[in-house]
Amino acid sequence: MTSSELDTRLGKPRGYVEKRSGIAWRYHASDNASQAELAAAALHDALDRHHIPADSVDLLISASAIAVQALPYSAVHILKAAGLPAGTPGFDVNSSCVSFITAMQVAAGLLQSGAYQRIAIVSADIASRGIDWQHEESSFIFGDGAACAIVERGDGSSGILGCLTEVYTQGSDFCEIRAGGTRKNPRAGMQESDFLFHMQGKPLFRLASSLIEDYFERLLQCSGLTLDDIATVVPHQASHLSLEHMRQRLHVPTEKLIDIYRHHGNQVAASIPTALHHAYSEGRVQPGKPLMLIGTAAGLTLSGMVLLP
Amino acid sequence: MTSSELDTRLGKPRGYVEKRSGIAWRYHASDNASQAELAAAALHDALDRHHIPADSVDLLISASAIAVQALPYSAVHILKAAGLPAGTPGFDVNSSCVSFITAMQVAAGLLQSGAYQRIAIVSADIASRGIDWQHEESSFIFGDGAACAIVERGDGSSGILGCLTEVYTQGSDFCEIRAGGTRKNPRAGMQESDFLFHMQGKPLFRLASSLIEDYFERLLQCSGLTLDDIATVVPHQASHLSLEHMRQRLHVPTEKLIDIYRHHGNQVAASIPTALHHAYSEGRVQPGKPLMLIGTAAGLTLSGMVLLP
Repeated sequence: MTSSELDTRLGKPRGYVEKRSGIAWRYHASDNASQAELAAAALHDALDRHHIPADSVDLLISASAIAVQALPYSAVHILKAAGLPAGTPGFDVNSSCVSFITAMQVAAGLLQSGAYQRIAIVSADIASRGIDWQHEESSFIFGDGAACAIVERGDGSSGILGCLTEVYTQGSDFCEIRAGGTRKNPRAGMQESDFLFHMQGKPLFRLASSLIEDYFERLLQCSGLTLDDIATVVPHQASHLSLEHMRQRLHVPTEKLIDIYRHHGNQVAASIPTALHHAYSEGRVQPGKPLMLIGTAAGLTLSGMVLLP
Repeated sequence: MTSSELDTRLGKPRGYVEKRSGIAWRYHASDNASQAELAAAALHDALDRHHIPADSVDLLISASAIAVQALPYSAVHILKAAGLPAGTPGFDVNSSCVSFITAMQVAAGLLQSGAYQRIAIVSADIASRGIDWQHEESSFIFGDGAACAIVERGDGSSGILGCLTEVYTQGSDFCEIRAGGTRKNPRAGMQESDFLFHMQGKPLFRLASSLIEDYFERLLQCSGLTLDDIATVVPHQASHLSLEHMRQRLHVPTEKLIDIYRHHGNQVAASIPTALHHAYSEGRVQPGKPLMLIGTAAGLTLSGMVLLP
């Protein structure tokens, strides 16, 4: 979905959406496309690229912000769509747009405890299905996508150097979709707008801005590194503004920052692993050179992880 | 909600619901009760009983089958309702009715890796909000509830002896609520019945029956124990029939089995931790005596864990 297509669709002058959003195009699935099939395609792509047999995956973690349906959990639908062997276990992990970071931390614990040997983490979000087209700011930015990582126990020379997540619930309703669970449904009462993504941009920005610098220091501290030690920063591609903040307020040099926003938009939980894939594809992830994943997410959630590839 | 109240509500002869369901009463929240507040009440009850300061909890895992809403994840709402200190992290884990077992395994990995020191796991489900009153079998059995466990790293004398989860996706639509995510919503198309719990009792029973005995053997094997070694079995309280199966087909003696079904019904993901709480309260959990958690869940998911308390 190019920004000029959106100009036409929304009755804006040519160039309006691209100028406002900083996005040339983002991907939108059709209204009946399957989130589970999108996830399964990412899973098989990861397996194929690295010649990993599907039957060697002994756990699937679904790490998306929005579920396929209320019950059962999304991993079931992905296991089915991917045709993984009968019995292969899975579960969902959810921390909205930073679900991939949480899933990485969870997977590391499970690998370390010996519970599993090879874990597939899949993030797939179809944000287009919840866009409120009446809300200019948020309707421009979202793209659909999926990405997968296969993780295994290492030999001790690589791994997680630090991980820090903080939740500030005074921002719990700054980004939300109210329907989908027990709060808004036919019995409790609901309306169509409850199914759409709502964002309170200004208070969200104020809260995130007041926290991000100190949070960033704490994240570096818990990894025992300074910003100079970090070779590559893979941020959640939340918005044009959020990426600018990484550059300016957190002093992340442009050459260290993975920025795929212009051609993907904000892909919700799929953003971080998609950007990570780009970093690998472009040779910007090197063994022994620390890599940071970082994002702000609905909650308000701040989460980051420093990895030694 | 007593079964005789349901007799009246559903126009059945006196005694009909209790005879069919094996339940004397189950709890139903009001249509606008908050799942997050229910979860927070369970969390504070657990903290209070064990004199644990709320600010010593360094992670909250929400382990429910149904979310509060599509975005953000339920842990945010529970952290807020519980008034935990600003910054306390949390995330959701979901494997439908066995979410508590998955969360215990995830927590064990995180404690072992040193990521967290004291983790609260809360399961809270308000199944009454999704009951299809036209479907006799499933409308009798569900109760609402919440339970919480606080887990910490042990000294090596207690912990998880084995854990096994298997998912058989040929049963993915035998228990489901189709709305709530990307599959059924205003944009993809939906109807009111998509918000209700649907169960295909007979094929579900056939599939579960064909798997459960061999699964049970594998679970015992991975824990290195025999059934004789297990002092207490805490099953998911799925149905009268499922508890009878534990007794008869898996040969679990009545005195080892925790059965709270008659006064709680099936509380979805809250069943296992609520039954575990009863086991502790009644002195049926003893240090050094192996304890099994086990359940079948939407997916179809089979999950179990053997713990040394």
